[in-house]
Amino acid sequence: MAKLEETIQSIGPLDAAAMEKARARQESLTKPRGSLGRLEELATQLAGIQGRPIPRVERKAVITMAADHGVAREGVSAYPVEVTGQMVANFLAGGAAINVLARLAGARVVVVDMGVAVDLPANPGLIDRKIGRGTRSLTRGPAMSRDEAIRAVEVGIEIVEAEVARGLDVVATGDMGIGNTPPSSALVAVLVGADVRAATGRGTGVDDAGLERKIEAIRRGIAVNRPDPTDPLDALSKLGGFEIAGLVGVILGAAANRTAVVVDGFISGAAALVAAGMAPAVRPYLIAGHRSVEAGHSLALEHLGLRPLLDLEMRLGEGTGAVLAMGILEAAARILAEMATFADAGVTDRPAG
Amino acid sequence: MAKLEETIQSIGPLDAAAMEKARARQESLTKPRGSLGRLEELATQLAGIQGRPIPRVERKAVITMAADHGVAREGVSAYPVEVTGQMVANFLAGGAAINVLARLAGARVVVVDMGVAVDLPANPGLIDRKIGRGTRSLTRGPAMSRDEAIRAVEVGIEIVEAEVARGLDVVATGDMGIGNTPPSSALVAVLVGADVRAATGRGTGVDDAGLERKIEAIRRGIAVNRPDPTDPLDALSKLGGFEIAGLVGVILGAAANRTAVVVDGFISGAAALVAAGMAPAVRPYLIAGHRSVEAGHSLALEHLGLRPLLDLEMRLGEGTGAVLAMGILEAAARILAEMATFADAGVTDRPAG
Repeated sequence: MAKLEETIQSIGPLDAAAMEKARARQESLTKPRGSLGRLEELATQLAGIQGRPIPRVERKAVITMAADHGVAREGVSAYPVEVTGQMVANFLAGGAAINVLARLAGARVVVVDMGVAVDLPANPGLIDRKIGRGTRSLTRGPAMSRDEAIRAVEVGIEIVEAEVARGLDVVATGDMGIGNTPPSSALVAVLVGADVRAATGRGTGVDDAGLERKIEAIRRGIAVNRPDPTDPLDALSKLGGFEIAGLVGVILGAAANRTAVVVDGFISGAAALVAAGMAPAVRPYLIAGHRSVEAGHSLALEHLGLRPLLDLEMRLGEGTGAVLAMGILEAAARILAEMATFADAGVTDRPAG
Repeated sequence: MAKLEETIQSIGPLDAAAMEKARARQESLTKPRGSLGRLEELATQLAGIQGRPIPRVERKAVITMAADHGVAREGVSAYPVEVTGQMVANFLAGGAAINVLARLAGARVVVVDMGVAVDLPANPGLIDRKIGRGTRSLTRGPAMSRDEAIRAVEVGIEIVEAEVARGLDVVATGDMGIGNTPPSSALVAVLVGADVRAATGRGTGVDDAGLERKIEAIRRGIAVNRPDPTDPLDALSKLGGFEIAGLVGVILGAAANRTAVVVDGFISGAAALVAAGMAPAVRPYLIAGHRSVEAGHSLALEHLGLRPLLDLEMRLGEGTGAVLAMGILEAAARILAEMATFADAGVTDRPAG
């Protein structure tokens, strides 16, 4: 708990002076003022996060955390639980969507076992920080103990600190876990104060009957556990998952290290809700990579006041939407770094006479 | 005219067999079906355009065409006319936004003088295909003769043909021309059948009085010229510009060569409207890179039935929105090319039991 408290305490405000310099430089570049829209806002935000008038988006990583969920065995998912471990192997072999998109973005993929149910073969690319062999089902009691949740959050902090030590300008969050949409829906419903049905979608693709079972399981989970909406750690431990808790730590740890966090879709959005509930100062460090088609994601984004960069009807997770959006961040930073000014280029910067 | 007719005649339908194979492969990849949303649709479209089940987005170019406009001298723009030529020099020096974004996307920038008012210094990077020293003002009569418009379109076809010969998987359209939003608004109003005010925005940033002058100039231009909405070439010649006509040719020529066209914002959107009016078969070759904040752009997109990939409140032109979107196209293609299948990766692909 000491590490968690210390991390939360060390999240400071954005650097207003760097943001002012970034804005001033933006105005001097050879384009009509404001004509690059959100790219300009993004460059200013990155300048404030990094405390550097010309931000860098060169050293990139996506931290993809995997875990299993007791609730997955209750007919709420389109895929069987063994797929979690199989997909971790796929990440390590470089064959998953996140690998392809990360290669394109120039981001390294950091794969963490936060609590996959099966033993995974040792692999130099796999960080083993298993908190347990999957959570217990939230329908029967707390998915995690409060202590397990704290440990998982602290693991997330340590993981991102290690990446910062390797060199990191921007980090993306990613998840893998069959059955991790019910915990995310439960967290969104409780923390946003939304109806369970409104916060629940089809995940990887359950049918109508599966969707009804899922909604029922989430309602039961909330009724059984009575999570305290004013205590995000309580909600996280009772309803969440090991990888969601780990991502909460990644988000908090990144902000504490003045590193921008590109939040992926629904699962990452639930983690961001928890993180922002625990530490409101984290909010300006967040960038929403994309809008997932999972209905609950839009509720989370709205609650966080985030506008996603992309809206491409994706719903895969793994960090795919966040990594795809990294190209937009890099564009924003490079515009500020590389464009000529009106003075340099000899371009007239005055109203037509 | 022979070249134009011949080009239009040679635009064929997309390759249905390649699209079917792309879809089948998409289904076999290690992700829930449909979970990459529009990336999957895009990969299928690219497969159909290229006639290749696994499309390529490696060899990329943005063709940025520059010209001046007689109407620019009538107080309708925030910047003076000399900026067109100055910005061409900036493109050639590599200091403009399009240069920065094209470097990031790995796209070459092809700069064409379609009709800049001043003589531009010879430069190995500049393609001089000046049709005239700026158009005449549309408020007083036709901006171009029909013959000039045809010549400009044919130049566009030749330019893209030369790029195809160099090797080209995807091409983006770009524009530069102080005063080119009034012609574009006029074209959109006439070809979509919209009110001039609804099709007119602030361009590079005119004030309220400038906006009213602009709307008035466009209305006068339409009243004076009586363009035939059923004859896109008539509308183009009377209301358009040399660079807009050139871009019409780029679009037609690309489609005739089975090359995907990423259409940039408002000016390029007006060119796409003209091209699709002249050759409806061009439509499936178009990809809308982004939605510009210029109101008329959304009218054009809706008329063309195109959903933009990005919506980042940009309004710069030059091809910036299209080139930024090239990263999305490349991601779509590489997912199809590089992801592991369920069989390859040993991942279970069956409903949970």
